[in-house]
Amino acid sequence: MKKPVLNNIVIDELLMAALREDMNGEDVSTQSVLEEDALGQVDLICKEDGVLAGLPVFTRVFQLLDLRVSFSFEVEEGEFIKKGQRVGVITGPVEALLSGERVALNYLQRMSGIASYTRKMVDALNDSTIKLVDTRKTTPLMRPFEKYSVIIGGGNNHRYNLSDSVMLKDNHIGLAGSVKEAIRRARAHAPFVRKIEVEVENMDMVRDAIEEKADIIMLDNMTVDEIKEAISFINKRAIVELSGNINIDNIHKYAGIGADVISSGALTHSAPVLDFSLKGLRRIG
Amino acid sequence: MKKPVLNNIVIDELLMAALREDMNGEDVSTQSVLEEDALGQVDLICKEDGVLAGLPVFTRVFQLLDLRVSFSFEVEEGEFIKKGQRVGVITGPVEALLSGERVALNYLQRMSGIASYTRKMVDALNDSTIKLVDTRKTTPLMRPFEKYSVIIGGGNNHRYNLSDSVMLKDNHIGLAGSVKEAIRRARAHAPFVRKIEVEVENMDMVRDAIEEKADIIMLDNMTVDEIKEAISFINKRAIVELSGNINIDNIHKYAGIGADVISSGALTHSAPVLDFSLKGLRRIG
Amino acid sequence: MKKPVLNNIVIDELLMAALREDMNGEDVSTQSVLEEDALGQVDLICKEDGVLAGLPVFTRVFQLLDLRVSFSFEVEEGEFIKKGQRVGVITGPVEALLSGERVALNYLQRMSGIASYTRKMVDALNDSTIKLVDTRKTTPLMRPFEKYSVIIGGGNNHRYNLSDSVMLKDNHIGLAGSVKEAIRRARAHAPFVRKIEVEVENMDMVRDAIEEKADIIMLDNMTVDEIKEAISFINKRAIVELSGNINIDNIHKYAGIGADVISSGALTHSAPVLDFSLKGLRRIG
Amino acid sequence: MKKPVLNNIVIDELLMAALREDMNGEDVSTQSVLEEDALGQVDLICKEDGVLAGLPVFTRVFQLLDLRVSFSFEVEEGEFIKKGQRVGVITGPVEALLSGERVALNYLQRMSGIASYTRKMVDALNDSTIKLVDTRKTTPLMRPFEKYSVIIGGGNNHRYNLSDSVMLKDNHIGLAGSVKEAIRRARAHAPFVRKIEVEVENMDMVRDAIEEKADIIMLDNMTVDEIKEAISFINKRAIVELSGNINIDNIHKYAGIGADVISSGALTHSAPVLDFSLKGLRRIG
Amino acid sequence: MKKPVLNNIVIDELLMAALREDMNGEDVSTQSVLEEDALGQVDLICKEDGVLAGLPVFTRVFQLLDLRVSFSFEVEEGEFIKKGQRVGVITGPVEALLSGERVALNYLQRMSGIASYTRKMVDALNDSTIKLVDTRKTTPLMRPFEKYSVIIGGGNNHRYNLSDSVMLKDNHIGLAGSVKEAIRRARAHAPFVRKIEVEVENMDMVRDAIEEKADIIMLDNMTVDEIKEAISFINKRAIVELSGNINIDNIHKYAGIGADVISSGALTHSAPVLDFSLKGLRRIG
Amino acid sequence: MKKPVLNNIVIDELLMAALREDMNGEDVSTQSVLEEDALGQVDLICKEDGVLAGLPVFTRVFQLLDLRVSFSFEVEEGEFIKKGQRVGVITGPVEALLSGERVALNYLQRMSGIASYTRKMVDALNDSTIKLVDTRKTTPLMRPFEKYSVIIGGGNNHRYNLSDSVMLKDNHIGLAGSVKEAIRRARAHAPFVRKIEVEVENMDMVRDAIEEKADIIMLDNMTVDEIKEAISFINKRAIVELSGNINIDNIHKYAGIGADVISSGALTHSAPVLDFSLKGLRRIG
Repeated sequence: MKKPVLNNIVIDELLMAALREDMNGEDVSTQSVLEEDALGQVDLICKEDGVLAGLPVFTRVFQLLDLRVSFSFEVEEGEFIKKGQRVGVITGPVEALLSGERVALNYLQRMSGIASYTRKMVDALNDSTIKLVDTRKTTPLMRPFEKYSVIIGGGNNHRYNLSDSVMLKDNHIGLAGSVKEAIRRARAHAPFVRKIEVEVENMDMVRDAIEEKADIIMLDNMTVDEIKEAISFINKRAIVELSGNINIDNIHKYAGIGADVISSGALTHSAPVLDFSLKGLRRIG
Repeated sequence: MKKPVLNNIVIDELLMAALREDMNGEDVSTQSVLEEDALGQVDLICKEDGVLAGLPVFTRVFQLLDLRVSFSFEVEEGEFIKKGQRVGVITGPVEALLSGERVALNYLQRMSGIASYTRKMVDALNDSTIKLVDTRKTTPLMRPFEKYSVIIGGGNNHRYNLSDSVMLKDNHIGLAGSVKEAIRRARAHAPFVRKIEVEVENMDMVRDAIEEKADIIMLDNMTVDEIKEAISFINKRAIVELSGNINIDNIHKYAGIGADVISSGALTHSAPVLDFSLKGLRRIG
Repeated sequence: MKKPVLNNIVIDELLMAALREDMNGEDVSTQSVLEEDALGQVDLICKEDGVLAGLPVFTRVFQLLDLRVSFSFEVEEGEFIKKGQRVGVITGPVEALLSGERVALNYLQRMSGIASYTRKMVDALNDSTIKLVDTRKTTPLMRPFEKYSVIIGGGNNHRYNLSDSVMLKDNHIGLAGSVKEAIRRARAHAPFVRKIEVEVENMDMVRDAIEEKADIIMLDNMTVDEIKEAISFINKRAIVELSGNINIDNIHKYAGIGADVISSGALTHSAPVLDFSLKGLRRIG
Repeated sequence: MKKPVLNNIVIDELLMAALREDMNGEDVSTQSVLEEDALGQVDLICKEDGVLAGLPVFTRVFQLLDLRVSFSFEVEEGEFIKKGQRVGVITGPVEALLSGERVALNYLQRMSGIASYTRKMVDALNDSTIKLVDTRKTTPLMRPFEKYSVIIGGGNNHRYNLSDSVMLKDNHIGLAGSVKEAIRRARAHAPFVRKIEVEVENMDMVRDAIEEKADIIMLDNMTVDEIKEAISFINKRAIVELSGNINIDNIHKYAGIGADVISSGALTHSAPVLDFSLKGLRRIG
Repeated sequence: MKKPVLNNIVIDELLMAALREDMNGEDVSTQSVLEEDALGQVDLICKEDGVLAGLPVFTRVFQLLDLRVSFSFEVEEGEFIKKGQRVGVITGPVEALLSGERVALNYLQRMSGIASYTRKMVDALNDSTIKLVDTRKTTPLMRPFEKYSVIIGGGNNHRYNLSDSVMLKDNHIGLAGSVKEAIRRARAHAPFVRKIEVEVENMDMVRDAIEEKADIIMLDNMTVDEIKEAISFINKRAIVELSGNINIDNIHKYAGIGADVISSGALTHSAPVLDFSLKGLRRIG
Repeated sequence: MKKPVLNNIVIDELLMAALREDMNGEDVSTQSVLEEDALGQVDLICKEDGVLAGLPVFTRVFQLLDLRVSFSFEVEEGEFIKKGQRVGVITGPVEALLSGERVALNYLQRMSGIASYTRKMVDALNDSTIKLVDTRKTTPLMRPFEKYSVIIGGGNNHRYNLSDSVMLKDNHIGLAGSVKEAIRRARAHAPFVRKIEVEVENMDMVRDAIEEKADIIMLDNMTVDEIKEAISFINKRAIVELSGNINIDNIHKYAGIGADVISSGALTHSAPVLDFSLKGLRRIG
């Protein structure tokens, strides 16, 4: 799988804002103890087993503070890491190492947490023909980082935001009056490059969606038997997405029944962090 | 306990950025189905038991989209809510209700998650003489919301960022050469309105901290017996903070031993979200 | 056709920046002659025949300067207007009317210019089964306004930006090695909600695109005969887009040959402005 | 003529915003086909005859994406270029070349379009004693680029915005009550470093303007005979600017009659773009 | 004299930034003591004699915090006020009154300080035919407020910034080679709406400036006799500005010698503040 | 004393805004005379005796304009400098030297002014056991620079803003009802890492403050005898701060009476600037 990319054009503003959130004046503690512009090294240590995600963000945070910070990593983005393992060594002005530590780790622990959790869900699903994807239930202003981490963990991304896709949910269908009318309106209104996805709850809605040629049909909160019936009826005429209360304990039930995609808000809103720390700061040079 | 405050001067920029993250053009789905500027109502439903936190943010998100959105809540900020309970009714232009839904819920579910988790920790601790406080292990650009939620849940806040407090940790002490020298340098350098906190790992460090009159001594990763010895020695000459691997399962062990503060990164980095949804959108007027 | 929407969340920053571009201090001329906070009225006059587009932007510019400015329009967005026709009357503080005039008109004349030009292209094509769409050849920081104006003029929108669609052009295909490989890579990498469009120049490429199940095939710079052959071969298995040197003089040649979409950069980069002015300022009250 | 300058302090914010307008996440197409951080070269080809303008902006766009992009141009800013001519070669990371292409070209084609159109107007005027200048009828947030391009094309600039000059137009004069009173008020109010310009429509107004010592008199929509009479009366006591419906077809009529300046909104609002493309991307190294 | 204007388009960003500089989270002290959303009143008291300047900024700061804050002033902008005098009463939410107090006063005391100092200089000069003007020696990000205050105090403004005027100083003349060449280059390069000012130090430079028709000649650090000689020679052919070490003690020496303008950096960089305070906060309603 | 630090994360936005305030287009004068991208050198000359403060800001302003500007200083930050002394030599593109001059000097002259004035106050106090500190009476958007300069001058800093400290003033105490109640509420509400300071005016308030264990007691506008009585009573149980009308003429009276801190708003709001200029620009290379 191609690695995703976090473009500086997009993320630098967020990282700078995060640094300013954590330091609106000087770093009082560090400035107190440092007497001159010393260079140092510190180890990045993993404190739990999991999947490493977020190195490009971790490094960028330090470099926005000071371009002289450099990195020597012993693990690659996306690899499994073990509790206690040294992930790499960071070298640079001690001031930048100490002042950037918390922000850099705050990103890394969340991103690795999501990648690790995604990996576990993918393994529990154990069906490589189904893509496990995220939702828009991301943390505000963390979306690019969280969606990136899902891919690192072996998942895929659903739409990025309200503007780049059509998803007709219960409230939209209610306003339009019917599944068919909602799809018709979306086809007339939306740019032709957008796929039209519709959320359905029963077979009648599935049939309507197929008749109006929805591109993607999301089966919301259906039982495995209902899902099988729907998939059989749809018969490849639309992409089938499953959603609703699918978690790491029950996801295996959806393997092998022919769905194309399973979406899970939990990937981004319920993944526990993966703990890291910077240890053993020493002066060099 | 006085309710905390989220000043618009501070949060509006974040909320606007979050809204733009989720909508960089039109809301294609909503614009497809809406034919005119209709008014509607929708119910805010809680889907899990917990503590409600984030109503001021939830309402502000909608009002930044459209000042005509109004709210009628049946529960107050900080109250316990039950799975299935209606928290309130939101009334306004359908367009704003649908386009703001996800961002508003993304904040509410995280904030209520943190408040709920904090409440559980406070209850598990069951010692009202000890303040349970957060750390800087917050989600980037969520800090004001997360620290607010900790208070709503019955906890308190530690320092806000690197600039407004002195905390001398292992790396700072290493650079200064000793606990005593680190404190001396901080006292000389830091504004006199700042308390000086030092992180210690053994009784020698405790003694040094007391000799140099540290304001706060954080006992890091000590056993209950070591903590008792330290507290006895400190004897109210400094505020005593406990930290390190204290969780909901073991926090009860720290009750009644005379500490002043327990800090826990888990409050902000590991609280699961509390699920909500907007249900039953209907047109009015 | 549903009217498009320009959300304030998205455009206010641009409009404020445009106002600041035109006034970094006071409006020296207006401040010189105005002695007090006078109210006035002024007529918005159209100076050329065309399609009116941009009223929501025109009004917003004035209201960002002063919320007391109000409007009474005699024509609706999207209607034909005639040279000399009064479009409406603007009422408010004279200061705001004079200081906002140029920025408001600069938007209105460009937006109406694009709507008018689009309408002419649509009429010249004279085939309502083909959507006439824009491209990314928009004016920097004018994209939301220009894409909106294309819809007002009777056209539709292609993708909004690089992040919300896949379009594999000559350079992408060259890097991948072949049409087929480019599509395969895009399918593996891109979110499943994205359609995959590929730009082709000959029948071999068309065949490859169809074999790999491209969602949209753009026939670039092909002759009418080549286009007919391609459309016949594609036979509804993909959306067919025509592109390349199609202008108001030759667009009629593409009517009735079964294409789905014609894209034209000229809609946004070559539409002449439609001239307006504010005339007859008078004091009131 | 001294080349104008576009200071990064002023334009970088605009270029960054334009890049973000075109890429709010990843460049999906490019990321799909690229497997590693490859270097490449691509040719900048001109597709129409005209005057080249915008190279500093074209290069800056790429360098904001990636500082490793370098350029080898075969033509200088301001020179005539021919259809099909190679303007230069761009070398750098393929990712930056592809992701920055459209934004860079969108600036270049508009800027060169304005320079080319200005050059044609200057040639049609064929009177080097008259300066051809722009107006404030620029595209919002394109003003620095458009005014720069007018100079590259052989024209000059009128005022930059409302704050840096005094121009008393019909509405200002109406509010003040008379030409004389408007000028008197402006002289009392405006900073002494500002010239005072007044727009007049007949000889009475010209006489009033001269009596009150206006620095610049703009003859608005006057016939050639009226203009000659006015210029004769003014007799070098003020700078004479001509304005109003002067276009490439009739501008020659104003040559040789002694005006100092001709202003034309068409330079910035009606210049067609000059088409360019990036062709022949190849990997290197 | 027409009152100057501070447009919200220009100043709101600065005022918001200033409020955030003084409050990056909650106002801890005020939040501690306030139990509910109480309304209150407080008096604005002047603590020194001087000229009042800055009321529009003072009020805007509070209204950016809370639109419900209202004002009843007993003195008008620009009037003399006496030590101990009540300037007005501010009514609104106690929270906004307390949290906005310092920022509002920080603006008011500096602006009134500049207006008061300017008034003293104008009185000491005692020659109403000479305009006393400011320079660019303003406090960073205070320029609009400081230049406004100079006018309120009875002075006038020199150029706003580097972009809106031409001032050829010693270093520019050195680079061009001579006064004449510098003026020639400026006339060729600068927009025709700009006056050309040149700084001279002796009669030879004055003669060169007159020969090249400079619009404004600044006599820098000349003696009164030298100034008289220069003014006599210039004989109304250019505006004469005096500059250099002119202060409140010696400015009277320049009265009556026929200069047009005296510029003084001291107006903005050396005016002492005029002290104010908010006193007598009481609850209402 | 450890030198303070101005982090680029914090100040770059302010410096960029200040540069844009002084140049919203080109630097017309410099662009007029410069014909090519010339290198030059210029001397930074001090024009008054004082303490040098602001070199990191002075250098950063030029480097934000052009990274090629370099510096060779002959004096260090914080040293005394004499009228006429050369502080250093600046080398770089002439364009950057001329365009950045005024902004760089505007910072340097204010910062050095504050450092010089602080040094004089420290010397007049002549009691090294008392810290002389600033207040929040700083110039809007100059706070980081002004507080830094106070330290360079030998003073110290009080709190940075409303969010990072508790200071209970007359209005807060009035709202709470009593000194004791105000302190109790602050202790319950404020983060435990905040010291609690209370402003008192008489011995009764002092006694209340001590009973409630205030961390810092500010004696506001008390006589020397009252202060002595209060200090004797407090007897090291709280930090004692003196405030109110303490100036360079009377500060010596407070020496030797046992106070810990004297705060003075005059340090930042009334320090006269220290004049500098750039002289002798010459081309090099």
